Order: sequence, then C-alpha cells, then structure tokens
Amino acid sequence: MNTTVLNIRTGDRPVVHDLTRACAEFVQDKSDGLLHVFVPHATAGLAILETGAGSDDDLLRRLDDLLPTDERWRHRHGTPGHGRDHVLPALIPPYASVPVLGGRLALGTWQSICLVDLNVDNPEREVRLTLLPG
Amino acid sequence: MNTTVLNIRTGDRPVVHDLTRACAEFVQDKSDGLLHVFVPHATAGLAILETGAGSDDDLLRRLDDLLPTDERWRHRHGTPGHGRDHVLPALIPPYASVPVLGGRLALGTWQSICLVDLNVDNPEREVRLTLLPG
Amino acid sequence: MNTTVLNIRTGDRPVVHDLTRACAEFVQDKSDGLLHVFVPHATAGLAILETGAGSDDDLLRRLDDLLPTDERWRHRHGTPGHGRDHVLPALIPPYASVPVLGGRLALGTWQSICLVDLNVDNPEREVRLTLLPG
Repeated sequence: MNTTVLNIRTGDRPVVHDLTRACAEFVQDKSDGLLHVFVPHATAGLAILETGAGSDDDLLRRLDDLLPTDERWRHRHGTPGHGRDHVLPALIPPYASVPVLGGRLALGTWQSICLVDLNVDNPEREVRLTLLPG
Repeated sequence: MNTTVLNIRTGDRPVVHDLTRACAEFVQDKSDGLLHVFVPHATAGLAILETGAGSDDDLLRRLDDLLPTDERWRHRHGTPGHGRDHVLPALIPPYASVPVLGGRLALGTWQSICLVDLNVDNPEREVRLTLLPG
Repeated sequence: MNTTVLNIRTGDRPVVHDLTRACAEFVQDKSDGLLHVFVPHATAGLAILETGAGSDDDLLRRLDDLLPTDERWRHRHGTPGHGRDHVLPALIPPYASVPVLGGRLALGTWQSICLVDLNVDNPEREVRLTLLPG
C-alpha cells in the first residue's frame, strides 16, 4: 500500500500545524486517487482550514470556550484540564481525506491540511499518509 | 478517476443545501465502492443529516451560538463576523463519504448529504464527487 | 465489495458504544487498505477516542451543553429535546476511516472506534463496515 508516516514536533503549546507541504510532496509522483491522512493519537485531530490569516488562532481560542481547560473532566492525568484534549477528536476527527488529481491535491486556494493538537504533554506526533487508488 | 464537479448556487444567506439527488445521479451507473464528496472552499463544510423537518434550520441556529457572528475573530475581511466562517470547516469538515452498493448510496432513510455554507460573500460553490473502487 | 453490517443494541440512554473489536475482527483476514465505517441513521455519529478512562462520559456531558436537551429545536417528535439528536451528525459525522495494515487497524494505543448515539427512542442500530483496497 502507498503509505508513509510523518514525524511532527508540535511542542508544549496548543497548535495548528500545517501539513499541506508534506502531503503535497507525498502525492506528487502518485496516480490519481484519494489522500487519506490519519493521526494515531487520542488527543489530536485534523482540520482543513486557511492558515496564516488568523483563523488558526481563532480556532484555538474558540476551542478554549467549547472545550474549556478546567476541572470538569472525569478523565484526569497530566496537566490540569487535559481531559478536554481527549474530547477533541470527537469534534475534530483524527482523519481527513482529499482527492488527488495529476499528482496534486485538489484543495481550494485557501485550504490547508492541519494537525490540531491541544495536548501540551506530548510534543511528538505521528501522522500517517495513505494514497488510495481512484 | 471517476470524478466530477458540481456547481452550486448557495446565495447570500447561510444555507444547508441538499446534494443528495446530484450524488445519487453520479453513482447510479457506477460499480460498488465509496462516494467521496469534497468542497474546495475554506468557508464551507459537508454534513449528513435529515432535511425538510427543521433540523437544517436547527443546525444553522446552533452554529450562530457555537460560532457567533461578532467581532471576536482575528480573521477579518468581508461582512462583519465572517471570521467564524473560516472556523466552520474544523467542526464541519469539507469532506464526507458514503458507501455505494448496486448503484445506490447506502444512506439511511432520513439521511441527506448537505453542503453547509455560512459564507454570505461567496454565492457560488464547487463540490467534487469521486467514486473510489470497492 | 468487502462489506458487512453490524447490528448494535444501544438501548434507551445516550451511549458511546465501542466498535473496535468488531472492526478488528472484520479486517483481520483482509488485504491492506482503508476501513470505512458508516452509520445509516440520522441521529448517531462515529468518534475515535479513548474509552474506559472517563472520556466517553466527558463527551456525553459536553454534548449536553453544546446540544442541550431542551425545547429550542424546530424538529420535534419523540422524547422532549430529541431535536438535538438530529444536529449531532453535523458535529460528529456518521462516517469514520482508519488505515489497515497487515490485517490490523493502524489505530494508536488509546484510540477506539465508537458509535455515539444520543437517541433514546431508537435502541437498535446498524453500522456498515467496508474495506477499500489500498
């Protein structure tokens, strides 16, 4: 199967990490099909959004309201509020998929494929890319 | 690859636009596999839900609370509050997928494939349909 | 096509029902590819998250805030507040997908594939599993 694993350093703060370039390099010599992106972690998700114009910060700040970093969570270990990181993947799933045509991602002009990682206790992440035949 | 692009007019108000009929027509002469739907825009998403019984309006009203149309967003251009449209795809992704069997979508009775478009500044949208072999 | 349907009893309370074992059994004798999971119901979703350490309850409690069980919903039938169940699939989609390698799901250590079902009026659910070739 056409698949590879990226190793990403997300550090110790919540981040939206742009994976688009790595995804584009993976598909550039491949046949038409579907790029599937998967994060094998229980406290991260994948989102397709515009980066570099404020929306990545807007997302992180909105998640602070939708999934507050407080003591409400039953899941408790690590940094206080970490329980919210485990609810994140229900709202921002750990998979994403984008058509590939002519060796290029069929993304819109302003779309980037991003790793959303709220977890401040796990600075290293893996991301699996797979090209399914079309 | 088995793929086509729909051109959808979503107008100048937030809408839930039902794509089910167009998707069904696309797959009706195809082999078994997976229908992949993708919106190449940074301010729209795809949702599978019941339409015509109030839930489409319920979704739009709930999004007004979850992603308010106010001045909190760092991303600023176009209509006031437009920044929220750029956070939408993190919660309602720009892709969806449904199995196809015997030339028919394997949807439940009350499920429709819908384009969710909050953006009032971009009345024309593209949607890419792809049939992956099963 | 490599596909099967699971019949799941979710009962009369909101639940996060772990499907991982059934998914693992489905793929164990299959070639490499992508497992696609689909729920053909308009009031359920699929989430990949850790189970058994509080996060499943955390998710259900958070959904009580994000999608309250009250009279705000235009969609009205069945148990009061049921309208929220029809908005759920926009936030927690009825599909999920996971790479399959060597007959095993390429999940992370703490990830489980779960059916999220808020609907108290429909105790029986179907889930379709499909293996797409890699």
